[in-house]
Formats: sequence, C-alpha cells, structure tokens
Amino acid sequence: MKNSAPGALQQLIDALRVLPGVGPKSAQRIAYHLLQHDRPGAQRLGDALLGSIATVQHCERCNNFTEQPVCETCLDPERDTSLLCVVETPADQVMVEQTMTYRGQYFVLMGKLSPLDGVGPREIHLDRLLRRVVDPAFGGVSEVILATNFTNEGEATAHYIGEMLKARGVKVSRLARGVPAGGELEYVDAGTIARAVLDRRAV
Amino acid sequence: MKNSAPGALQQLIDALRVLPGVGPKSAQRIAYHLLQHDRPGAQRLGDALLGSIATVQHCERCNNFTEQPVCETCLDPERDTSLLCVVETPADQVMVEQTMTYRGQYFVLMGKLSPLDGVGPREIHLDRLLRRVVDPAFGGVSEVILATNFTNEGEATAHYIGEMLKARGVKVSRLARGVPAGGELEYVDAGTIARAVLDRRAV
Ligand SMILES: [Zn+2]
Ligand SMILES: [Zn+2]
Repeated sequence: MKNSAPGALQQLIDALRVLPGVGPKSAQRIAYHLLQHDRPGAQRLGDALLGSIATVQHCERCNNFTEQPVCETCLDPERDTSLLCVVETPADQVMVEQTMTYRGQYFVLMGKLSPLDGVGPREIHLDRLLRRVVDPAFGGVSEVILATNFTNEGEATAHYIGEMLKARGVKVSRLARGVPAGGELEYVDAGTIARAVLDRRAV
Repeated sequence: MKNSAPGALQQLIDALRVLPGVGPKSAQRIAYHLLQHDRPGAQRLGDALLGSIATVQHCERCNNFTEQPVCETCLDPERDTSLLCVVETPADQVMVEQTMTYRGQYFVLMGKLSPLDGVGPREIHLDRLLRRVVDPAFGGVSEVILATNFTNEGEATAHYIGEMLKARGVKVSRLARGVPAGGELEYVDAGTIARAVLDRRAV
C-alpha cells in the first residue's frame, strides 16, 4: 500500500518523537496542528532549535549553559569567588538566585547520581567539579554549599560530593532542612530556600 | 536581577510553548533535555520543521498535505474518479486506505464544523469541497461518501455537507454504523446495536 504522507511531513512526524512523552499518535497530531494552524510558530521553533544547538555550550567554569566560553555569572566581578554553590540543574540555580541571599558562584551538575540509571560520578563529571574547587587557577574556594535536591538521589549526590571534597580538606555545607524532605527546589517557595541558605550546616 | 539564561536558550524555551500542552516549566525541561542529552535529535527536529514549512502545502484537489501542487493519491490513474470520500483529517484517510475496500478519491476537510469554537463552513473551506464535486474540470463525481467521525461534531459536519450536496443533485452516502468487526455484542453500547439493527442488510 502506498503511504499517502509526503516525505517532509513524515520526517517531521518522526522527528517530533524526540520530545519526551510524544508517541506516534501525538507526533502526528502535533505535526498536523503546526502545519495547519501555526506555521509561524513552527518556524520560530525550528530556528530556535538550530540556533541554540549552534550557540549554546557549557560554561568552562560552572558547567551551566552559556553562549560564551565563560558565562555572565562566573564573570560577574561582584560575586564572592570564595563560595561555590552546587546545584543539579540551571533551573535550580535560578531558584537559589531568586532568594537574593546568595552572592557566591555556582557549579551546575546537569544531573545527579543515579546508579540505577547508570549515572555515576563520571557521568555527571565530578572530576570537573573537583578541579573547579581545588585548582588555584579558578581562584580559591573556601566553602562549597551543596544545594542538590532533598530527594534520595539528590541526598546521595550531596553525600558523595561532600565526602570527595572533605577528603581534600575543603569546607562543605548542605542547605538546611528548611526544604521539605522529598522536595525539589524548583517547586519550593523562595522564602523557604532563603531560610535554608541562611541555616546551611557544615557536613 | 540578571537572568542567567542565555538568549538562545531562552528563545528555545519560549518557542517550545508553540507545542500543544507545553507550559513554561515543561518547555524549560524539554530545552534542557535536548541541549544536554539529544542534540542530534534537536537538529533533526529543527531541520524537519523548517523543511516541512518550506515544502508541505495543501493539494489543489483533495486539500490533504502534499509537497506537490496535486498529491500522489489524486494523480493515481488507477483510482475511480467518480467516487469521493470526505474525511476530517489525513490520519482518517490513512485509516480508510488501510481497509483496502475503497479505491476512489478523497477530500480532506482538515477539521470539522464546531460552532462553539467558531469553526463554521467557511473555516473548513466547504466552498472548495463543493467546487471539487461540481466543477467538471475535476472530472465528474457521481457519489460522495461522508466518512467524518461518528462524534457529535462529525455527524453535524456530515449532515451539513450532505444537505449542501444533495441540494446540487449529488448522490451522497454515509459510512454505515454498526457492530465493529470482531465486536462482541455484550461489550458494544446499546446505541450502536440499535443502529446496527436499523441498518441491517439482507444476506
Ligand atoms: Zn559559568
Ligand atoms: Zn490530493
């Protein structure tokens, strides 16, 4: 039987499967919707995808997304370079920033330890975090604040990093449990996170 | 406060909102996922979006998506040009094709009448359907088979088109309703069985 879908349309349907949670049926529905009702939006999305792939890389210092070799946050001369806050994702960094209680620098893991999913210390590049902390070329870090989520995996990640850094004589603290157990930072109000920063404890 | 998200990343997050059901949080998560874990997939999707916008248009005869002025189905010399099957979407046409019982031509509404959503006869271009049926330039159509869905809106659409075409003296039929193939009466709703009794055929 001849497939009546034209090549470019089928390619679009197939390509949409890259989106999390999009199966064949919804890929087809999205493709029809875009081509039928929102070609300008599809154009913007296509441009943004190709543009971001071409320009967005990881910051050499903090590992966050950036369009420059080193991001604006890392280059900000008003930030305290002796404090380094470790977060799981860029969204978590934004949440900590919004508390207005922290003016140090960041390291973004872009993930968390998750042995069941095959994500170990190497996969989240903890060697780069270690170098960031101990290499004098990055400026001396006197304290590392672990701000991973208070989920099982976030706690395990904080524990692992804490042990790794303490073995090198680095002072390490963890956000206080103002954050509800099991809570993800992204969904916690800024006031709670602010309290947790102030109450951070040495680990 | 400075937004730490770089321009191209924020543009991607904003552009992802064009997808149905994607809010700000999930747009952010999808953007991070693609940039972190699936740049080849993001590249394919970007290429496919721009490629399909540039090439996919509507067939002059049947209104389905095509990369040519007239689609392959409409140009197929083995099809019976005297039969025209009206469906709501390209996916519905594929379903009818898969039955292997129909070898006529199609008209794809790319929608259905939905007065509550402001979709009237003009919005689904019923004038084009009418021209397709009555204009001799398209070859004579002797029967139009209405294969819109058996939903309230699909039924209303079929009814409206049926009246429109019968007023022009065109022979119109509707897909039979009845018990699905393989269906056990015990699990079919009473309304379907009632219709199947009314539409019973001699054997
Ligand atoms: Zn940085
Ligand atoms: Zn066609």
